[in-house]
Amino acid sequence: MATTLVIFGITGDLAQRKLLPALSSLERKGQLPPGTKIIGVGRRKKTSEELHEDIRTTLARFATLQPTDTFLSLFSYHQMEFHSEAGYEALKSQLGEQTIYYLSTPPNLFGTITRHLRAAGMTQDAKVAFEKPFGNDLQSARELNNALLEGFTEEQIYRVDHYIGKSAIQNIFTMRFANTVFESLLCSQYVDSIQITAAESIGVEDRGEYYESAGALRDMVQSHLLQILALLTMAEPASLQPHAIHEQKQAVLDAVQRPDKFSVQETTVRAQYGAGTDTVAYRDEENVEYDSATETFVALKLLINTDRWRDVPVYIRTGKRLPKKRSYVSVVFKQPPSMLFSNGGAVPNTLTIEIQPNETISFTVNSKTPESKLQVTPVNMDFSHEERFGSNTPEAYERLFFDIFMGDKMLFPSWKEVESSWEIVQPMLDACRMVTTIETYEPGTMPASADALIRKDGREWL
Amino acid sequence: MATTLVIFGITGDLAQRKLLPALSSLERKGQLPPGTKIIGVGRRKKTSEELHEDIRTTLARFATLQPTDTFLSLFSYHQMEFHSEAGYEALKSQLGEQTIYYLSTPPNLFGTITRHLRAAGMTQDAKVAFEKPFGNDLQSARELNNALLEGFTEEQIYRVDHYIGKSAIQNIFTMRFANTVFESLLCSQYVDSIQITAAESIGVEDRGEYYESAGALRDMVQSHLLQILALLTMAEPASLQPHAIHEQKQAVLDAVQRPDKFSVQETTVRAQYGAGTDTVAYRDEENVEYDSATETFVALKLLINTDRWRDVPVYIRTGKRLPKKRSYVSVVFKQPPSMLFSNGGAVPNTLTIEIQPNETISFTVNSKTPESKLQVTPVNMDFSHEERFGSNTPEAYERLFFDIFMGDKMLFPSWKEVESSWEIVQPMLDACRMVTTIETYEPGTMPASADALIRKDGREWL
Repeated sequence: MATTLVIFGITGDLAQRKLLPALSSLERKGQLPPGTKIIGVGRRKKTSEELHEDIRTTLARFATLQPTDTFLSLFSYHQMEFHSEAGYEALKSQLGEQTIYYLSTPPNLFGTITRHLRAAGMTQDAKVAFEKPFGNDLQSARELNNALLEGFTEEQIYRVDHYIGKSAIQNIFTMRFANTVFESLLCSQYVDSIQITAAESIGVEDRGEYYESAGALRDMVQSHLLQILALLTMAEPASLQPHAIHEQKQAVLDAVQRPDKFSVQETTVRAQYGAGTDTVAYRDEENVEYDSATETFVALKLLINTDRWRDVPVYIRTGKRLPKKRSYVSVVFKQPPSMLFSNGGAVPNTLTIEIQPNETISFTVNSKTPESKLQVTPVNMDFSHEERFGSNTPEAYERLFFDIFMGDKMLFPSWKEVESSWEIVQPMLDACRMVTTIETYEPGTMPASADALIRKDGREWL
Repeated sequence: MATTLVIFGITGDLAQRKLLPALSSLERKGQLPPGTKIIGVGRRKKTSEELHEDIRTTLARFATLQPTDTFLSLFSYHQMEFHSEAGYEALKSQLGEQTIYYLSTPPNLFGTITRHLRAAGMTQDAKVAFEKPFGNDLQSARELNNALLEGFTEEQIYRVDHYIGKSAIQNIFTMRFANTVFESLLCSQYVDSIQITAAESIGVEDRGEYYESAGALRDMVQSHLLQILALLTMAEPASLQPHAIHEQKQAVLDAVQRPDKFSVQETTVRAQYGAGTDTVAYRDEENVEYDSATETFVALKLLINTDRWRDVPVYIRTGKRLPKKRSYVSVVFKQPPSMLFSNGGAVPNTLTIEIQPNETISFTVNSKTPESKLQVTPVNMDFSHEERFGSNTPEAYERLFFDIFMGDKMLFPSWKEVESSWEIVQPMLDACRMVTTIETYEPGTMPASADALIRKDGREWL
């Protein structure tokens, strides 16, 4: 079945940085379905030949390999205004048997595009893909979703969260359900607490405008990090079918205790980076308000109201200008009940799944020190993905594009998951709305309030 | 308290190869108690100066470092016949406040020595140490023990099993009880089976005479390998006190199901190595009978009658002239109940504790293959003792001597443990007694009957 991929916003940043390099790589690997055509849609006047030249320029900048001539020949350019009926009719005449719309425009155009596609009879049997932000809060997310539902069913919609495209994130799911030794241990009987950390050392760079309206909570927690939480804590699905997996992810997100306006003060801390030796404060970044109260760091504590996770807190922290770029999940186990070796230096066991920069999985356990029978030393039992498999893992967008072509929805969050995630963070967003001041932290350090948050519970960040 | 160590049989093989090098090393490290004197007892006429010369020669051969002059000065030689009262009286006059008798003679002299020591009033408050074989079967082991009890209480007796002196073996205990992630998994809910392998690539070498009367079952299983089984499967002791540990080791050995004369045929296989390209058959080794039916290989299956280990078979195999020198314990876990990834190539998880030649601990788990969401590949999460700590672990005999000096009995099996181990192997010994033929195997291969033993149960050796 010949597929036409229509990319709305072909000249935009996302298309250039992510979509075109991924498509080019898939084409080189022979992983585009036979007969695929790609239509780039934009408002500017441009010929297809000019688009090909643009793609060459773009890929020279953002891809490691130049596009093949075959790849370029898949592309044609379609100029139209997004609110012009005629434009859609003209587009329609170019479609094949199966169409994928990739909405790479600002989200406020999704409704307009959807309505016009439906009016032109172009939505049936098509797929539609787009990226987060899936709304700006619970209310706007619902509105956005409703706008899409005017033209598409949930079954047709592919919500792209590129974090889930990463092999290391998918491996959280695989490692759990393919291995007795992980899955048996992941429950409140053995687990003390969970920590999810996504730390960047850089600042907002040229994304000030977007970031100013988002902040760390929307940018990272509502989307990526709650998806990680879901993958790590979900119950075992009945099968590997996407709907079975979405069902269990949704179930555990639904079980995350929603903070109320009082508890949220106790369980969430926000902070913003100040000026460093060679770096400007967040408020001095381009396109950021001089008195901005947007958080560039957030830490929070969540509880999951299921038997499996009773009383096991999940601590999440994420931010920019932190000491080190590193994203990882740590499961901290309880000490053995007898504490036989607690005087011998035994530390709680941990399971750490590092997502970036290195894809590794490691248990920290206590081993006998060579000279002593009663003293122990923490040691790591680890596995490095790169050492074992080399660095040939497909990029997140390649994986996701391939799955959209194949119609495999496993890696695309359902609306119910997205809605549940917004419900979790909404009380935090509400609490911020009134706030005009925010703690600042020195670039390269972890905000003091994040330490205070976890120390209240007698724990430490790892 | 000044200690006198009396080594009966100072000129014997064990003393030369193991005891003297260990003592010399302890002395270099300053780990001999202050004021220690060592009396070498032998039947040959010799001066102390000649003994010092002998020790120099011995250590040049069996130790990495030469003895210090201080070390040699600790030694004096005492010539006596083991049945001569006068010899004991003369020895008595040389003892200090605290005495350790190390019986490094053939076991048939233990009774004679003990009775004379008691008669001379030399056993009170002393310690006595000796090595396996602790008897040749259940009956003779009881007789040997009773002979020792004529002079010493159980509290005074140190049974030396040099395997337990190895740090890697002790670490089985430490790893279990210092780590939630191991201890929680070690039960029938998660474990399918356990394998204990102690393989040598060499033949019996110059030990034909001893080996001919022992065989693999006595030489390895009754002693070392059942001790490993006990450390791996014992319940958690109430404390790290030696008696608490012995109590639980004994309890699990007592719970090992004793085979009867019918079941033993189904659960034990014996074999003997034949001639290889450059190596002689066992029957052609020096001091071995031309029609010997002694086994140089044994494999067996045991069950443990406790709730914790219900229906979890323990497979043990050990022998000489096997493909590779390697001793390790593997815990094979059950597959996850849903088998979500069984079509994707998931293998059962295993925990492997290698004792020699490398001291490592590793989990074999299933990781996502880079290109696929549903296929998995087995990978290892491992820890190498040498990579982490270097190769500075004390030798087994150093550890054990140190503990005898300190009066720490943790690493010395109790009589009840030894007796229980003999009870386990006695039905196998009884079954062999009638047998005059034995399967032979090609050097460098695993006997076919061992494969058959485990395949009956639908399993494979790892």
